Amino acid sequence: MATLGLIEYQDASPDVRAVYDDIMATRQTDWINNFWKSIAHDPATLRRTWESVKQVMAPGALDPLTKEMVYLAISASNQCGYCIASHTAAARKAGMTNQQFAELMAVVGMANETNRLVSGYQVEIDERFRTP
Amino acid sequence: MATLGLIEYQDASPDVRAVYDDIMATRQTDWINNFWKSIAHDPATLRRTWESVKQVMAPGALDPLTKEMVYLAISASNQCGYCIASHTAAARKAGMTNQQFAELMAVVGMANETNRLVSGYQVEIDERFRTP
Amino acid sequence: MATLGLIEYQDASPDVRAVYDDIMATRQTDWINNFWKSIAHDPATLRRTWESVKQVMAPGALDPLTKEMVYLAISASNQCGYCIASHTAAARKAGMTNQQFAELMAVVGMANETNRLVSGYQVEIDERFRTP
Amino acid sequence: MATLGLIEYQDASPDVRAVYDDIMATRQTDWINNFWKSIAHDPATLRRTWESVKQVMAPGALDPLTKEMVYLAISASNQCGYCIASHTAAARKAGMTNQQFAELMAVVGMANETNRLVSGYQVEIDERFRTP
Amino acid sequence: MATLGLIEYQDASPDVRAVYDDIMATRQTDWINNFWKSIAHDPATLRRTWESVKQVMAPGALDPLTKEMVYLAISASNQCGYCIASHTAAARKAGMTNQQFAELMAVVGMANETNRLVSGYQVEIDERFRTP
Amino acid sequence: MATLGLIEYQDASPDVRAVYDDIMATRQTDWINNFWKSIAHDPATLRRTWESVKQVMAPGALDPLTKEMVYLAISASNQCGYCIASHTAAARKAGMTNQQFAELMAVVGMANETNRLVSGYQVEIDERFRTP
Repeated sequence: MATLGLIEYQDASPDVRAVYDDIMATRQTDWINNFWKSIAHDPATLRRTWESVKQVMAPGALDPLTKEMVYLAISASNQCGYCIASHTAAARKAGMTNQQFAELMAVVGMANETNRLVSGYQVEIDERFRTP
Repeated sequence: MATLGLIEYQDASPDVRAVYDDIMATRQTDWINNFWKSIAHDPATLRRTWESVKQVMAPGALDPLTKEMVYLAISASNQCGYCIASHTAAARKAGMTNQQFAELMAVVGMANETNRLVSGYQVEIDERFRTP
Repeated sequence: MATLGLIEYQDASPDVRAVYDDIMATRQTDWINNFWKSIAHDPATLRRTWESVKQVMAPGALDPLTKEMVYLAISASNQCGYCIASHTAAARKAGMTNQQFAELMAVVGMANETNRLVSGYQVEIDERFRTP
Repeated sequence: MATLGLIEYQDASPDVRAVYDDIMATRQTDWINNFWKSIAHDPATLRRTWESVKQVMAPGALDPLTKEMVYLAISASNQCGYCIASHTAAARKAGMTNQQFAELMAVVGMANETNRLVSGYQVEIDERFRTP
Repeated sequence: MATLGLIEYQDASPDVRAVYDDIMATRQTDWINNFWKSIAHDPATLRRTWESVKQVMAPGALDPLTKEMVYLAISASNQCGYCIASHTAAARKAGMTNQQFAELMAVVGMANETNRLVSGYQVEIDERFRTP
Repeated sequence: MATLGLIEYQDASPDVRAVYDDIMATRQTDWINNFWKSIAHDPATLRRTWESVKQVMAPGALDPLTKEMVYLAISASNQCGYCIASHTAAARKAGMTNQQFAELMAVVGMANETNRLVSGYQVEIDERFRTP
């Protein structure tokens, strides 16, 4: 029930196709998932979002698997069903094992718990944690 | 302005001291940060939370640095000031560089953006992303 | 699977019917959506919520389309599926075009991204932004 | 640094004063906290919010202490500093003990943890939990 | 579509079965809901989470019904569909009436509203609300 | 206490200065706020974020004031103190009146309330709201 529907490759304008082509080439895959087909109704957002994701998720000081797991962790914390499904798949493709997934979720859960204990108890920042 | 105040080591009951001792031994440090001193008013929660954090953050399929960075990522996404300050310190102690921090935040930001594009466009989960 | 079920017009008590009638008259429509039928189990909440929504969404310093788009923006940011579906419909009825929808979602996404960069980097408020 | 400043009783218009008077009478207190003085710049929102809070927080099927603790629980979960401070005070005034506060926060923390485990593991609703 | 599938009793390892047995004994029921069957892929998380939930939800300064309602309130505020369904069932089993449910949701809604008015208006904490 | 400190114009590298220059030129102002000075430690994120914000906030199907108000609405809903302060300033510069601010916050508050009533009552999407 995507709000504006999905734009399939064969129905896409040249600029949308160019992004689709780059997504498939970068990800070494032969299909486009619904997220991109949904936002393709706004070619500027499609291009901007893809270029940003490509830059942010490229290998750097953090390796691709770590980045995918962080993306999945945030999506789980935000409770975004689509994002959890798609980034679980992406993290697995990048090598995430079941045990890594399980430990990742354990950290996500624990962080969400202590974040609220901190706020509820109105804990003040220790001087040692303040940046000089 | 911690709601119930802070319980310092010298004022702590034996069971609270035992947890404080274990925190300092496990973390190889000689002080206790405000979070633990705040929840120490409820010794059962102090012990349970510490035992859980100790178990969850121990090296496993994910290394300690990755776990600390995920904890920081969730805290940043949840906008918990205390947690961001304390887990930035913890991640740095575990070896996080400025560049790793910057890339981590970039992933956190991007995930929060696309999570909302997904929900706003009402994107449906692709069949390929569904677990068999 | 509404928790308490849905209360249809023909089964409603007079006070619930009175609210339903006012909703339909105010919105110039001939049906009641599931939200109201769900909370109608608590007539006080039904009336209070409707009176509040009616007051808040009435034309004022902000026009009805802007208000509907803000409502949709918050619902997308909060990832409330029902609310996104219902307020997308309401915003369209108020005149929202596909391009306006797309730009609205782009702002929602960007705000969610920079909100987390701000928290993660622990950015302090500039003096110039403080209210005198 | 309230965005629009605070409206003190002596500077308030008659309609704002009427709400202030009702707040003090209902709460059996002789002062107005900053929240009301901030939104008083919008008398319609002041009145509507106060009338709603008064109705929602009145004794009913849930007693006032339980309602105040739930309000505090939500505020802690949402990490709203002002709300935590003000509703901790309100809950204490309604009789909340330190031990009740501690148990309340423990539930808030645990719910936030399992909420994310549920989403991360993509747990489906059991048939028995679906409302007939 | 649980990410790692569900582990049924007959397929469970002895340590997982031990937790399942304790869940059923503690809750005086003869079945295990999907949440536990999902996280059972990580026996350490299963055991830790169950032990924590058992401790946190046990009768104490707050009675079991109040605790269940707070758990439900947080789940509703966080918009976790599974958690809302399962904890509505649990709260009902603990005695929650429809009217209590309705009042609970009214408080949850109101707290979420005023939490944002507070942040939007940048309301500062009153001196009287600060803990000495 | 920005995590990595602030990079002032005189200390900035040429690529960071180029972004600072474009920010000041685009916004017709002579200073850079702390957000940009904080993320300037990661020039790629600085440039990407600025280019994205510039594109997203440019006049289009939505006018600049509406876009700024939506940005502020999301920031208030997310309870990001810095973002609320900076975007309140930006919205005022774009022409937002006190009355528009007040109505905006009223919508933000109401949406946050009904979003939770919807989730708590487990309201299902009406067929009429589903996109064909």
